[in-house]
Order: sequence, then C-alpha cells, then structure tokens
Amino acid sequence: MSDRRTEIVRAATRVIARRGVRGLRVGELAAEAGVSTALIYYHFTDRAGILRETLEFIGERADRYTAEPDHENAAKDPRAELEQALLLELQNSAEVRENSTAWGELRASAVFESGLREDLARATHTWVHEIAELLGRAHPAGTAPAHAASAERLTALLEGLSIRWLSGSLPLDHARRLLGEAVDAEMADCRAAHR
Amino acid sequence: MSDRRTEIVRAATRVIARRGVRGLRVGELAAEAGVSTALIYYHFTDRAGILRETLEFIGERADRYTAEPDHENAAKDPRAELEQALLLELQNSAEVRENSTAWGELRASAVFESGLREDLARATHTWVHEIAELLGRAHPAGTAPAHAASAERLTALLEGLSIRWLSGSLPLDHARRLLGEAVDAEMADCRAAHR
Repeated sequence: MSDRRTEIVRAATRVIARRGVRGLRVGELAAEAGVSTALIYYHFTDRAGILRETLEFIGERADRYTAEPDHENAAKDPRAELEQALLLELQNSAEVRENSTAWGELRASAVFESGLREDLARATHTWVHEIAELLGRAHPAGTAPAHAASAERLTALLEGLSIRWLSGSLPLDHARRLLGEAVDAEMADCRAAHR
Repeated sequence: MSDRRTEIVRAATRVIARRGVRGLRVGELAAEAGVSTALIYYHFTDRAGILRETLEFIGERADRYTAEPDHENAAKDPRAELEQALLLELQNSAEVRENSTAWGELRASAVFESGLREDLARATHTWVHEIAELLGRAHPAGTAPAHAASAERLTALLEGLSIRWLSGSLPLDHARRLLGEAVDAEMADCRAAHR
C-alpha cells in the first residue's frame, strides 16, 4: 500500500474507533487524513472500498502486535505463542483499544450493512485459521477438525470478552483470566471423553 | 408496565433491530408505536430512559423464550435446562433474531455511549448469575467461583457466536454445535487438573 493510501486507512480506523462506522463520512475522513475527498475516491472508489481496506489494515495490525518478539518464549514454545496471540488482543494500549473497537464496530455494523459481510467473513476465516494452526503446533495430539472448532470458540469468546471490556461490563484483568482458562480447557481436550 | 408503555418498548426493540441504536429517533419511534412523541417523553423522560427500559424488556423476553416448558426434560434435568437456556438464544425465529440483534447493538453502542454502560453491566451481571445458578445445579461438584467463571465464559462466547451468526460469518447450526461443545468442556471441569 502506498504511504498516502496507508495514511487514509489509518485515519479511517481512528474515526471508526472514535465515532463508529456509522459516524464515518468521507468528508470527515478527508479532514482526519489531511487529504481531499477526491483523493479518497481515487484510491478507494467508494465507502465500501474504504471499509474493506480498513478491515484488512486492522487484521494486519493485530497480527503484528500479537506476534511481538519481545514476549518471552513465544518463538520457542507453541503454547506460549498461542496464548500470546489471543491475550495480546486484550491489552490496555491505545493501539489495541483502537483496533479492537474498530473491529467490534465493523462486526456490529455488518449486522445492518450486508455489503460488509463477505469481507468480514473472509477476515474472520483467516484469523480462525491462524489460531487453529497455532493450536495444531501447541497440541499435536488433537485432530485438525478439533483444532478448527477450538479456534472458532476461542476467537468468538475473545470477541465477546473484548466488547464486554470496551463497553464497561468487564475489567480487563478479569477478561484476560477468563480467556487464559478457556485456552487451558481447549488444550486439555477433555471433551474427547464425552464422545 | 402499562400496555401503552410496553407497546412503546416493543416498538423501540423493533426499530433498534432494524436500523441500530443510532437509527433510533424519538419521532420515528412514535410513528412505529403509533403514539405521540409527547407520550414517549411522558413515560420515559429521555432517550436514555427508552434505552434503559428496552434493555430490560429484551432481558425479560430472552428469559421467557429460553425457559419454554415444551422442551423435553428441561424442568427435570438441570443439565438440559442449562443447555436450553444457552442454545435457545441461537434460533432462527423472528423473535430471537430481533432480540439478539437489539442486544448486540445495545452492547456495541455502549462502547461509544457511556450513558448505557451501567444498565448494560447490570443486565449482563443478572444474566451471568442466572447461568451460574443453572451450572451449580447441573454440576454440584464444582465451586461457586468456578461456576461464575464458566457462566461468564459461556455467555461471552454466546454473544460472540451470536454476532458472528447475525453478521453472516457463521451458519446457525455450526454456532449451536460450537456452543454445545463449550458447555461440555465447562462441565467436564478438566481445568482443575491444571491448577
């Protein structure tokens, strides 16, 4: 992505995290990014194009901050890498809060705007696949379908906990503890005994 | 609640499920409910009052449709009652879809509107407490804090799965299967082995 294009997408993420998707007007985005509305239409064609690339930007940014190399053992220990990939989505940093707010808001508005759904389903699928892969490395005894189901549950739980945190129903530390215990439960594979 | 008051709250739920909380204007609500805006202000004082009572109405309606007596064994078997209380939130009926859409939307808008947060946190707490109680009856061997944590995870997972379903990222049957497996995992209590 060109620098100018990236700057516009960054600005769109900020506006969405501040006022919601429904607060995003191209004029306001132009002001936030310090460019003309014509340039925005040139790069993204329409509002749907802006939202699509913003979704992609949010996904890539999350990939980056959940894979920071300074977290202990992550590179060597697949279990630690898995926990990090999930728990670093629940952090009280401005970047994570902005990213999670914008992601939750794009998710919520796709209930009303059908145009967003396909891109959102694709982004969700990519994320679930990444977590399933980490589960496969952390827990090689499980089967691929079991890893996929666990990854769907863990990422859906994370979305649920994240919006409770951001909407003031759940303290951050407590959300992290609940998620950590869910990882333990999925890894313990005790459901196998029930089938 | 008086009939007129209930009718206004029902209409608010429909408008929120159709166009979102941010689409809710008192004038439109009056038209939807077939009353004057003056009557709405008389009953609810302001927009915050409308949202507060709508949240309560949604919670009570969910209590009703997740406790329908015609579902087999629910009254006798606490485990079946627990599964029903959760799985009946994922049903392709117009009422459940409307209720879940409105609940998810109130949750999402509380990220931006701080005025809703306290009521939402209270409604969430009530729901978690009900599920923890069912867990206590279905799984008497567990401790109260473990039941509370399980109830928080199961309800947050349900919110996450519900919005994925409503936003077109997850088929309903698959969401129900993932939730059923999560109930199994929480009941199996295998996390105890890790502590």
